[in-house]
Amino acid sequence: MLRPCDAAFLERLSASLPSDTLAAPAPRYLEEPRGRMTGQAGAVALPRNVEEVSVILRACHEAHVPVIAYGGGTGLVGAQVGQGDMLPLIVSLERMSAIRQVYPTENVLIAEAGAILADVQAGAEDAGRLFPLSLASEGSARIGGLLACNAGGVNVLRYGNARDLVLGLEVVLPDGRIWHGLNRLRKDNTGYDLRHLMIGSEGTLGVITAASLRLFSRPVVQGAALMVVDSPEAALRLLALAQARLGEGISAFELIGGMGLVFLAEAMPHLRQPFAAAPDWMVLIDLGLSADRNATDALEGLFAAALDQGLVHDGVIAASLAQRKEFWNLRESIPEANRHIGAISSHDISLPLSAIAPFIERAGQGLAQIEALRVNCFGHLGDGNLHYNVFPAPGRDRASYESLRDRIKTFVHDLVHQMGGSISAEHGIGRMKAADLVTYGDPVKLAAMRAIKDALDPHGIMNPGAVLMQQEMKRE
Amino acid sequence: MLRPCDAAFLERLSASLPSDTLAAPAPRYLEEPRGRMTGQAGAVALPRNVEEVSVILRACHEAHVPVIAYGGGTGLVGAQVGQGDMLPLIVSLERMSAIRQVYPTENVLIAEAGAILADVQAGAEDAGRLFPLSLASEGSARIGGLLACNAGGVNVLRYGNARDLVLGLEVVLPDGRIWHGLNRLRKDNTGYDLRHLMIGSEGTLGVITAASLRLFSRPVVQGAALMVVDSPEAALRLLALAQARLGEGISAFELIGGMGLVFLAEAMPHLRQPFAAAPDWMVLIDLGLSADRNATDALEGLFAAALDQGLVHDGVIAASLAQRKEFWNLRESIPEANRHIGAISSHDISLPLSAIAPFIERAGQGLAQIEALRVNCFGHLGDGNLHYNVFPAPGRDRASYESLRDRIKTFVHDLVHQMGGSISAEHGIGRMKAADLVTYGDPVKLAAMRAIKDALDPHGIMNPGAVLMQQEMKRE
Repeated sequence: MLRPCDAAFLERLSASLPSDTLAAPAPRYLEEPRGRMTGQAGAVALPRNVEEVSVILRACHEAHVPVIAYGGGTGLVGAQVGQGDMLPLIVSLERMSAIRQVYPTENVLIAEAGAILADVQAGAEDAGRLFPLSLASEGSARIGGLLACNAGGVNVLRYGNARDLVLGLEVVLPDGRIWHGLNRLRKDNTGYDLRHLMIGSEGTLGVITAASLRLFSRPVVQGAALMVVDSPEAALRLLALAQARLGEGISAFELIGGMGLVFLAEAMPHLRQPFAAAPDWMVLIDLGLSADRNATDALEGLFAAALDQGLVHDGVIAASLAQRKEFWNLRESIPEANRHIGAISSHDISLPLSAIAPFIERAGQGLAQIEALRVNCFGHLGDGNLHYNVFPAPGRDRASYESLRDRIKTFVHDLVHQMGGSISAEHGIGRMKAADLVTYGDPVKLAAMRAIKDALDPHGIMNPGAVLMQQEMKRE
Repeated sequence: MLRPCDAAFLERLSASLPSDTLAAPAPRYLEEPRGRMTGQAGAVALPRNVEEVSVILRACHEAHVPVIAYGGGTGLVGAQVGQGDMLPLIVSLERMSAIRQVYPTENVLIAEAGAILADVQAGAEDAGRLFPLSLASEGSARIGGLLACNAGGVNVLRYGNARDLVLGLEVVLPDGRIWHGLNRLRKDNTGYDLRHLMIGSEGTLGVITAASLRLFSRPVVQGAALMVVDSPEAALRLLALAQARLGEGISAFELIGGMGLVFLAEAMPHLRQPFAAAPDWMVLIDLGLSADRNATDALEGLFAAALDQGLVHDGVIAASLAQRKEFWNLRESIPEANRHIGAISSHDISLPLSAIAPFIERAGQGLAQIEALRVNCFGHLGDGNLHYNVFPAPGRDRASYESLRDRIKTFVHDLVHQMGGSISAEHGIGRMKAADLVTYGDPVKLAAMRAIKDALDPHGIMNPGAVLMQQEMKRE
């Protein structure tokens, strides 16, 4: 049985900590960024170092008080928002925001969990290196949370997901013990990979307090192009052609549906549109090359070859870094335009690459049978990751679709599942998709997860109700 | 308590399986490849599909009979060799050697666990793709074993360790349940990452029966060079320069110590040596570039820049693919030359990159104080992975060092540990290093490993004594 983070518990805990470590939880700790959930908490703890995190977790473990580890609060699946009848202690890592050390020769940077992603990127840049994790919320998302949910973003195609950028971790386990695993090794086969188990476990198995992160050489030559393709199928063939010609030089390959441009024109008319008539499909290709190469040549060569194969029929290559930025600004404004229009339902999904085009076709047909709808489908095509968002028909508002929301969501998720895809590509499960994980997840995997959870967190104090549903998680 | 795989158990098990599934264990299943251990087993099971593996594991789970999953038998730490007073059932995956499917558009190949690495490489090549895992035993090592020990090899710098090449797994858990996790997704954040937990667990948490593997574009343009450097320090600076200039185009960056060339001259005098006088240190740089590039130009440019910075003072660029092969043949013959000379002790270690040069210096000095010795140090410098092997002084044989072997090993491992390195970079722990893991491993990590092991394998039947020492693992 969990017990509340009440005054008596807080009084006992405060005796073991510096006086300003515990505070009443400001509203910002209790709000989900899109306003879809509001949480509750007995207090927020603001530890300054791993030892204080250890003291806090040991006390919660002994008292059976639930803990929610808190990063930048930018997660989109409610993993950071306590729900139900529990009263948790929020442990915010915001005071542990140091970049402890940069090792340029090793291409390694050690950051505390509370370091903001943009600061880590800047720390790498100051050392002449690149930390490639990049996503919309990088100005407020913190490393601990980004690793807890194995964040994705726009550079996964080239550099991998967040987990692929981690060499080592420092983690406080649920009972307060500290795992000192901050190594800086590229190869280390000494036992089970706890690092990857902690990454993506969304605060349910421990609190990440620091990470040693991989850095990369900064691509010296950059370039980008927008190319108009007939279909998602053609976009995928263009990707294969680009990979064959340019190898790892492709940093991002983003699919943009015509509806995205329509929404942009409506919501943000000041943005310059790249083509006179909005194409049905286009891709944004971003290159990062070594010093001896020329991005414009590479993109022109790719475009010519793609034209020969009938894969593209229009395109524009960025003539300057400013224009490249403009292309990216267009891409990154789509979520804002979406918010302006107001989605009925949003889906962060992934599919095997060869299922993407059939999925888009079948999903469009199926939704049309439910009701008149608009779909804005865009995303990280190279990773098979679509943001598939469903909107009201023109002139209608989303309230009129309220009764259809569940049906739409279930239709999309069923189809994704049937086609071998994932209902959470890069956002995680949190609380919003915990029931979906029971529906669509492999039951043997779920049972193994539950066994691991019970083994490492026997009282079930770590982020109860996230990832594993609470009744599934602990049957005392 | 574990029970033996005896005649009564085998009789019961055989009733649930096709008649030729169980056999007496041929000697090859019981031998460690370097002759350092001999094992025992009650029988070998040769299942044809995942369902038969499931039947076998369920029976072993119920009867508490130990299981050793067996791949190609090439592992170097004794994980595949049963020891002590137990009588295990060997489950060989050799009949499950199919490449189930290749998806060239997706850059994915699905292989069964018994597929030999060279066959997987060939399957990828037939589809115009590359499966980059490459190591000396690729003609006999099987995918299941390679993943169970998270194999490394020569292309880790560019493509990652074995674990980084896996999108999904099919695994039979210790109680016989099948986890169907063979997805083909680049992004999938639906719960704990069991994939990475199974990879590297050396058969102690389940039996991998199939894997979906990442493929890559084949580099069209290849090239290689040998460059003479003054020191390991200069080699690392050359690596940084090469990465800044050529980015991910560098497929391998291998350090070769002068002693390796001396041993080659002695053991394999027919091999052509690249330099008239054996240099103290050289590196083998291998490039794989896209079609629009020229490897010779790239290597000449690198050499000129390195010469300017005083990092290199001699070098030879492969004039043909045949000469490139000759360079690699030289590198890959070093282990054979080592066997000819006869090592006192061999160490598969990794270090933070900036600790490599100081380690080599301090290790050399420390060993010289123990006794007159020779060291052949070579390895995958880009990964911080050294094969640090200690040999008798000229004219002496290794028997005369027998009493010093433990002292040498302990000295090397202590120093590696002190300098933040790993005592097993790419070979794993198996049985040979299980005691070392207790000595050098983080105790909190070890306790978490034990908790996970007990949760997933409550009777402790999976590869008992490997990775976790038997008394550590199960106290019934």
